[in-house]
Amino acid sequence: MSPSPWRLAARTERMNPSVIREILKLTELPGIISLAGGLPSPDTFPVEAMRAATTRVLRDHPREALQYAASEGYPPLREWVAAEVGSRGVAVDAAQVLITTGSQQGLDLVGKALIDRGSRVAVESPTYLGALQAFTPYEPELVAIACDDEGPLPAALAAEGQGARFLYVLPNFQNPSGRSIGAARRAAIAASARDVGLPIVEDNPYGDLWYDAEPAAPIASLWREGTIYLGSFSKVLAPGLRLGYVVAPAEVMPKLLQAKQASDLHTPSLNQRMVHEVVKDGFLREHVPTIRKRYKAQRDAMQAALAAHLPQSGPRACRWQVPGGGMFFWLELPEDVDAEALLPRAVERGVAFVPGAPFFAGAAKKNTLRLSFVTVAPEAIERGVRALAAALETTR
Amino acid sequence: MSPSPWRLAARTERMNPSVIREILKLTELPGIISLAGGLPSPDTFPVEAMRAATTRVLRDHPREALQYAASEGYPPLREWVAAEVGSRGVAVDAAQVLITTGSQQGLDLVGKALIDRGSRVAVESPTYLGALQAFTPYEPELVAIACDDEGPLPAALAAEGQGARFLYVLPNFQNPSGRSIGAARRAAIAASARDVGLPIVEDNPYGDLWYDAEPAAPIASLWREGTIYLGSFSKVLAPGLRLGYVVAPAEVMPKLLQAKQASDLHTPSLNQRMVHEVVKDGFLREHVPTIRKRYKAQRDAMQAALAAHLPQSGPRACRWQVPGGGMFFWLELPEDVDAEALLPRAVERGVAFVPGAPFFAGAAKKNTLRLSFVTVAPEAIERGVRALAAALETTR
Repeated sequence: MSPSPWRLAARTERMNPSVIREILKLTELPGIISLAGGLPSPDTFPVEAMRAATTRVLRDHPREALQYAASEGYPPLREWVAAEVGSRGVAVDAAQVLITTGSQQGLDLVGKALIDRGSRVAVESPTYLGALQAFTPYEPELVAIACDDEGPLPAALAAEGQGARFLYVLPNFQNPSGRSIGAARRAAIAASARDVGLPIVEDNPYGDLWYDAEPAAPIASLWREGTIYLGSFSKVLAPGLRLGYVVAPAEVMPKLLQAKQASDLHTPSLNQRMVHEVVKDGFLREHVPTIRKRYKAQRDAMQAALAAHLPQSGPRACRWQVPGGGMFFWLELPEDVDAEALLPRAVERGVAFVPGAPFFAGAAKKNTLRLSFVTVAPEAIERGVRALAAALETTR
Repeated sequence: MSPSPWRLAARTERMNPSVIREILKLTELPGIISLAGGLPSPDTFPVEAMRAATTRVLRDHPREALQYAASEGYPPLREWVAAEVGSRGVAVDAAQVLITTGSQQGLDLVGKALIDRGSRVAVESPTYLGALQAFTPYEPELVAIACDDEGPLPAALAAEGQGARFLYVLPNFQNPSGRSIGAARRAAIAASARDVGLPIVEDNPYGDLWYDAEPAAPIASLWREGTIYLGSFSKVLAPGLRLGYVVAPAEVMPKLLQAKQASDLHTPSLNQRMVHEVVKDGFLREHVPTIRKRYKAQRDAMQAALAAHLPQSGPRACRWQVPGGGMFFWLELPEDVDAEALLPRAVERGVAFVPGAPFFAGAAKKNTLRLSFVTVAPEAIERGVRALAAALETTR
């Protein structure tokens, strides 16, 4: 046999199968209550609206929907996005909007345009795993910024963020921690970042999914020329369409656009037109509240179950915040409990979760885990949390 | 005003707006016959079949079509692709098939997995511009392999290709040159590449669009473990769906898959299911011949017009091959004619084309241009070529 002719790029040594993906395989056993997922509930997909929109698009504009199109995206959808983010206080022109194949692609394009091998990139602690996966192939040096319950500490930003290519931050109901950054902290982060010349990449997949109070205005509204803002239709419509967007300062946009063109020419025309057809007349104003209502009940059920079954004081106390929105609770277990070691015991007892360690770019807190409440009915949430508590009992 | 906080990655200096894209803007004026396009004719899109398939998918599997899905792709579509490439002599398992967001993404993933900064990458001369755009962000040193009318010269491959990460080759009706590599040359290329340990990336977007005789078996069938094979649904169904695939040796697949996951998580579920629904019962066997018939007539019209209006002998002779398939004629003008300088004169006379220079990774032949025959009716092709001949007359 001849030796292999293939030589892989050095970057592939840092690329690994998603830990979560591997865990999900282990936990997709029958009878297991999975609180491990990161998927929205398919009960929230507006199937009828999608069907009607698709029918109209393929009836009225089949050739355009099936033909190659501009890399920037479908112009009316870009206009819609500009108006949408404008309504959140981020005044932009449609020319600053780039439609992407899911917001995961937005993260990849940001990496392609901004990261050199060895560039420092500042991230929250913990941070979104998909962003780490998107940035890693560009071989950055990741810098974990110290965070408290309200996100990155402005002083840590000033100390650690200087010279980094950007700070990646997910201010609303973060995946995995569920935490949100309040208005005052956002202002402090923007001021501190501006002081040290650290641009911000602000990711907002969950902002519409608030259950108690609407989130503060995006950081992008505070420092427009220093912020790239990413949004997505995955959580308010459906993720399988792979539709997201990037709003970028004029100075960065041309390179993001060229990176987009090199990556997949453009996001599928049909999908862009379908989604525009669904959203253009205000559909989300009626639809999103129905998602909020459903998820809020599930969040409340998880909070009640956690409070009922997990110790909140004493030497075995667990700690969590009630997330104001999004999809996740983040649990801190007693210091001596390794969530990864806990997982098989939990699965034995009928519940699965995602250990927290993979979400840390720096030193991992191994005693953390993520629980999703959106795909499981309240009654099953209660049973799942009880099983988790039972597994935790065995670690005493 | 504070200084800009943004610092772009070094790779962005090599990334440029697509020359063709810029040219297309100039030539989209009313009244211009555009032979510049690279788009398939929308008359070939099977709109009815797409509508019916979409209706079935959104009726029978709406939740799956709208939900997140595996990065590898929709399993039945992967099976279909494995059978399809198997019928061409490339025996593979569905596990070796990765569904991509157009074959442009396949090229990007190949770059991400295989190219380090400064890696040598061997390409044909001329070569597909989209591939150059996909590879360039990974900062390769491109090596243009000498070619004749039948593609890369095996001796040049052995001399120049050694140590390169791969040879990128488009053997059927190449974009831009229209040329095809015959069976004997394919065998010689495979043998030569294997000798020097040079893997091959074989791109086949046009193989089904043959007008005279079916192309030879893919190079991948001659050196399975040394070849990555890329295919696309863009030319046989519709490009706006952005659906392609990569067939890769087991040793490379895991890294392509991780690169895919980092890039956009997965190709839209709906699009994959739609296309599978369209193709699963043999639709392409009936549909593709209708495309061939249409494009063959247009190719013949262009050949007739070129033969009628352009000098083929003497000092002002032009040179071209009749492409056996695909979408393009490639014209070599007299040595002293710069096609880029010719373009405005042609546009003045009512016809547009794409100058050939951007398709060369090495020294560009400036006296070349590309003509597409697929979106223009035979009568307009005749007028367009006449206008081109008139513009050429002014260069005497």
